[in-house]
Amino acid sequence: MRRYRLAEPVYVTRPTMPSLARYSEKLEGVWRRRWLTNEGELHRELEGRLRERLGLEYVSLFCNGTIALMVALQALRTHGGEVITTPFTFPATAHVLFWNGIRPVFCDIDAETFNLDPRQIEPLISAETQAILPVHVYGTPCDVDAIQAIADRHGLRVLYDAAHAFGVEYHGRSLLSYGDASVLSFHATKLFTTVEGGALVSKTPEQFRRVNFLKNFGIADEDTVIGPGINGKLNELQAAFGLLQLETVDVEIANRQRLTDLYREQLTDVPGIIIRGDRPGVSHNYGYLPILVEPEKFGMCRDELCDSLREFNIFARKYFHPLCSHFPCYSALPSADPKRLPTAERVAGQVLCLPIYGELDRETVLAICETIRQLGRLGRTDSGGGR
Amino acid sequence: MRRYRLAEPVYVTRPTMPSLARYSEKLEGVWRRRWLTNEGELHRELEGRLRERLGLEYVSLFCNGTIALMVALQALRTHGGEVITTPFTFPATAHVLFWNGIRPVFCDIDAETFNLDPRQIEPLISAETQAILPVHVYGTPCDVDAIQAIADRHGLRVLYDAAHAFGVEYHGRSLLSYGDASVLSFHATKLFTTVEGGALVSKTPEQFRRVNFLKNFGIADEDTVIGPGINGKLNELQAAFGLLQLETVDVEIANRQRLTDLYREQLTDVPGIIIRGDRPGVSHNYGYLPILVEPEKFGMCRDELCDSLREFNIFARKYFHPLCSHFPCYSALPSADPKRLPTAERVAGQVLCLPIYGELDRETVLAICETIRQLGRLGRTDSGGGR
Repeated sequence: MRRYRLAEPVYVTRPTMPSLARYSEKLEGVWRRRWLTNEGELHRELEGRLRERLGLEYVSLFCNGTIALMVALQALRTHGGEVITTPFTFPATAHVLFWNGIRPVFCDIDAETFNLDPRQIEPLISAETQAILPVHVYGTPCDVDAIQAIADRHGLRVLYDAAHAFGVEYHGRSLLSYGDASVLSFHATKLFTTVEGGALVSKTPEQFRRVNFLKNFGIADEDTVIGPGINGKLNELQAAFGLLQLETVDVEIANRQRLTDLYREQLTDVPGIIIRGDRPGVSHNYGYLPILVEPEKFGMCRDELCDSLREFNIFARKYFHPLCSHFPCYSALPSADPKRLPTAERVAGQVLCLPIYGELDRETVLAICETIRQLGRLGRTDSGGGR
Repeated sequence: MRRYRLAEPVYVTRPTMPSLARYSEKLEGVWRRRWLTNEGELHRELEGRLRERLGLEYVSLFCNGTIALMVALQALRTHGGEVITTPFTFPATAHVLFWNGIRPVFCDIDAETFNLDPRQIEPLISAETQAILPVHVYGTPCDVDAIQAIADRHGLRVLYDAAHAFGVEYHGRSLLSYGDASVLSFHATKLFTTVEGGALVSKTPEQFRRVNFLKNFGIADEDTVIGPGINGKLNELQAAFGLLQLETVDVEIANRQRLTDLYREQLTDVPGIIIRGDRPGVSHNYGYLPILVEPEKFGMCRDELCDSLREFNIFARKYFHPLCSHFPCYSALPSADPKRLPTAERVAGQVLCLPIYGELDRETVLAICETIRQLGRLGRTDSGGGR
């Protein structure tokens, strides 16, 4: 199989960069003004453009999505007690609860969406529950209507970790408009990036104002600090990068969609590989390319496949393994018991995110798919077929 | 007095910028590598250069000083309970305690250094006390030996907020080498800047390792998350800026020293203006130019002087007013009672930071000093001399 090895390593993602010349040009005004951070001109411009692009009213930029999520809880006055969340997510989701003195309560996920399963939320609600923190994993919308109905019945806040959900629409409106607030990540590995960065989407003008105070230490004016804020500011160097990225993000989405279609076409009939299609009513962003590996049918397990692909210069990622409920700081919680999270446990053990980014070429995708197909065949032969 | 009005507004500080051409050149490698954050090559280079420049072994870069301070407490396992700190500081110092579930206990300051008064720390120590969090305000060293002696006697950690203390030496060694850890700020208003940014200085290799995990979500390797970390990463765009700033920081310090000398020479004999000299055993960084305004002797109070200076296009800043103990979120604490913090109350009411930055010219400093002198004279005349 040596012949399948790619000449250059291919990583799970790669940022599409504006030209350095255009970036430098964008910085000329920053150099002239010498205004480098604290709501600079490019910062304001980027907030405005994001409001337009996403069809939202209240967007606050942050230095990263994690700090935005941490501040969102404080903005929603969610402190102490418990919050119901998913274990199948990046560590940040659980950690921001820690920084707000909140105990995470892990809830199992839905086998189709890989998101919080609304049918399992209610039994976890206690007198201590403050909010629900679902994640739109890979940009796939949560069952937002069912979640809101539960929240309304119990008087809970809903804060969406929408780190992956840039530009996703659900039933014709921005997915970010659901719940009490949503948080985006603009990390370099994301579809739209400001290198590091993120944004908090507020629901009301009051919340928006408060968020903007909190991300600047709670400073309301020279003499007034309204509460325990933090430094969550995004600077002008990053805002400049974001403005240029925004010009190409729709081309990026279209390119990723074409590659996603190709992956689907190529992998659908590979035994033991599950690749999902589009969901009804959703305008996806194609930010990630997750597959599930069913070891018995495929011929090897996800970890073996991941390791084998590396030998072919293909660097896939096990997003999200391990589950947050496995981290030593959370594993002693009753809700972290693997027996209570069977779907999350299974998906975390089978999922693999394959390389996807706008500049990835079709030939490489074909080579990746063929390598997977061959590895499965080899695995099934080695183990006497199908085991 | 109209003739004293400056043609252009002069702010309290202004960053010395590398040329945009050199900055763009520095980014060429970043564009080539497409490695934008998560310990990139320039990030590693900057950490190395800072280690050399500051004469320290363990320097971890952060997206800003506040997040570094927040993580430092977690790195030192300081969570819950009480921490003794100064109210005369930027809001971040108190707020990071909130994010770690810690109750601040405010201690009065020394009238000479404006830093935590070691003689007043011990009566505030309770069974709940975890640590002392002093601030080297304006880069003036705290009484580090007295503080360490108290900490040792009571088994407390000492974490220095050294946001202003870049490059300061005390008794021939870096001021940042005292205590269990120190945190620097590289915000755009600082002597040395990465636009936003900061660094955590660790004492031991174990602490350094742990800090580096914690600033990246606690991720130790692909399968291990050691604890509730956060995103504290500094990106390549900022590291590039920092590398160029570092080349000129010593010139910046020298320039500020000359301007400080000029301010001292001009303001020493103005009635009611107190301007401090260098302290013995200290190699200062001249990052700030604080004066105290004694209203009875000067002829007007600090607030009046600050407002009046604006009319002359001089934008001084009331660092640090109001005291953290005045913020609504902390003012109900017993230790926040103004009667227990007489020196801090007085200094916060009298202090004013005058413009200082390397590119400020001597003529402007002379004009600022003359304006202050005239305003005082006018004030004393208006109020019938001296009242």
